[in-house]
Amino acid sequence: MMELQKMKSNVVGIDIGIATTTYAVIDLRGNILAQESFDTREYPNIDNYLGVLSEHLVNLVERTCGYENIRSVGVCCPNSNYKTGCLENATNLQWKGVIPLAALMRDRLGLAVALANNSQCIALGEQAFGAAHGMRDFVIITLGHGMGSCFFSNGKMHMGNKGFAGEIGHTCVVPNGRECSCGHRGCLESYCAERGVIQTAKELLAERNEPSMLRNVDDINPKVLTEMAELGDHLAIETWRRTGEMLGMGLANYASILNPEAIILTGGLPHAGRWLLEPTEAAFENHVFRNIKGQTRLLVSSLKDGERDVLGASVLAWQVKEYSLFL
Amino acid sequence: MMELQKMKSNVVGIDIGIATTTYAVIDLRGNILAQESFDTREYPNIDNYLGVLSEHLVNLVERTCGYENIRSVGVCCPNSNYKTGCLENATNLQWKGVIPLAALMRDRLGLAVALANNSQCIALGEQAFGAAHGMRDFVIITLGHGMGSCFFSNGKMHMGNKGFAGEIGHTCVVPNGRECSCGHRGCLESYCAERGVIQTAKELLAERNEPSMLRNVDDINPKVLTEMAELGDHLAIETWRRTGEMLGMGLANYASILNPEAIILTGGLPHAGRWLLEPTEAAFENHVFRNIKGQTRLLVSSLKDGERDVLGASVLAWQVKEYSLFL
Repeated sequence: MMELQKMKSNVVGIDIGIATTTYAVIDLRGNILAQESFDTREYPNIDNYLGVLSEHLVNLVERTCGYENIRSVGVCCPNSNYKTGCLENATNLQWKGVIPLAALMRDRLGLAVALANNSQCIALGEQAFGAAHGMRDFVIITLGHGMGSCFFSNGKMHMGNKGFAGEIGHTCVVPNGRECSCGHRGCLESYCAERGVIQTAKELLAERNEPSMLRNVDDINPKVLTEMAELGDHLAIETWRRTGEMLGMGLANYASILNPEAIILTGGLPHAGRWLLEPTEAAFENHVFRNIKGQTRLLVSSLKDGERDVLGASVLAWQVKEYSLFL
Repeated sequence: MMELQKMKSNVVGIDIGIATTTYAVIDLRGNILAQESFDTREYPNIDNYLGVLSEHLVNLVERTCGYENIRSVGVCCPNSNYKTGCLENATNLQWKGVIPLAALMRDRLGLAVALANNSQCIALGEQAFGAAHGMRDFVIITLGHGMGSCFFSNGKMHMGNKGFAGEIGHTCVVPNGRECSCGHRGCLESYCAERGVIQTAKELLAERNEPSMLRNVDDINPKVLTEMAELGDHLAIETWRRTGEMLGMGLANYASILNPEAIILTGGLPHAGRWLLEPTEAAFENHVFRNIKGQTRLLVSSLKDGERDVLGASVLAWQVKEYSLFL
């Protein structure tokens, strides 16, 4: 009689960030057993990068639970495509073109590897362990340098025909409005992501004469804007109000199409707290279609900033079929 | 030994329109075996209406294939909710409030009854027998008096948390733009559905001095605008161009979020043909996010106007679990 194979109880979650790569050994319940990171930018060559990552990872795993207890690997990486397993034409990472990242890592590690972008991983993580727990129809918004999204339909992640769904940041909210980094005009991202918020602050400083502490700040950024708002600076408060007005309208459009149970905000900008959230909520309720008025919860992620992406990547890892040369 | 029950091979599809109610006996392959209709507006009382509908229906069925060969019933009706089986706060039908239409009909007919709105039924019909055949991620747009939509995610209809998904007509495309019948401003429907197109024509006639045959028309409507465009009337052509510009932008926003394989236009307005479709396609490609540029097919429904809704209702009927007092 063959011996029953013991179920492997851990996975690896990897978050490839523009600045930092984080990798962790995580169990089925989302407990992070061990975690380390290194600087992504030190490896402009993808093969070198993957070699170093694999070596670090194997070391961490051996010290934590042993390689034989790792079931699979989930990778969270910007511009990556869940459907193809490829990193595709990354805008902010140093590796260009189309790179079959999942296959390259599988070959190095001898483990099944799944790949998804940040919004998708975060959606998986929030559904398993966070603010979307138990929800079947919800939206994740990532709001930081850029603006992305992911939604679940009937309990399943919506990826679209080619895996490119979720580009809410590049929906047009103001015909012929602000220039966006994507080459179009009036995109939601150009008002609501980091650069957009800073532009709004600068426009306000130029169009109004009233005094503001912001006039003495060299490097206006969302963190400073929140601090100034806390101190009662009117222009900082107004910057967040205008941002929230646009964001609420954009989210209302999204919700009118999807009728989600909740929209969960993640990323750096929601740290602005009520300065951003209150005007967002007001604009949302003002614009959303009457059938779902008062029915959509606007929430902020309940997971920690440093853990959200690797946790999501670990949930992704459980979704891929186990792989081994010896199975 | 028990005799195996013969599979029932037909269903009933019902389309409750504001003006006309159509009901048909339809087989598994979408062949319409018999079809009749009557005037919806003659029955302001819902119980009378359902009594008459049931009587007509039973007669038609008995003459066609016999009641014992009908498996179930699908009903296509505006403002109806697939998830609850209720007609909910209809705007253009004469029956107000929340009416448990599916349950009322099931009790009268002794057959399982499923209920969905027009966009949902049409999506089911187009996927089974029409332009969306074989597709897993696609969007249906209904464009006539109003503007609705339905999309499929991973091969399944997306209904949203409470069944209210699809209100693309009430997404804001112009902040503080035109007044919409929903009470908001700048909704896509207020530019692209019937009333919006007429308003655009009237605005053009007011803002320009050039001669136009439209100046001699008492009742400007989409049909007239298409006829005039065919005759080379510049203002009629420009009316459709402006409509298409808005529609293309709105659809691009939808596509950037969903990444569908195709967007299928149905309803009365697409009969404007190239006058509407060419500017729509140009604006769509101009606004859609770069990842999916050139990848989304804009199609027009391939089903006949008088059959599309009952065919869709028949597909809906096959989705509901068979019901009988005697099973």
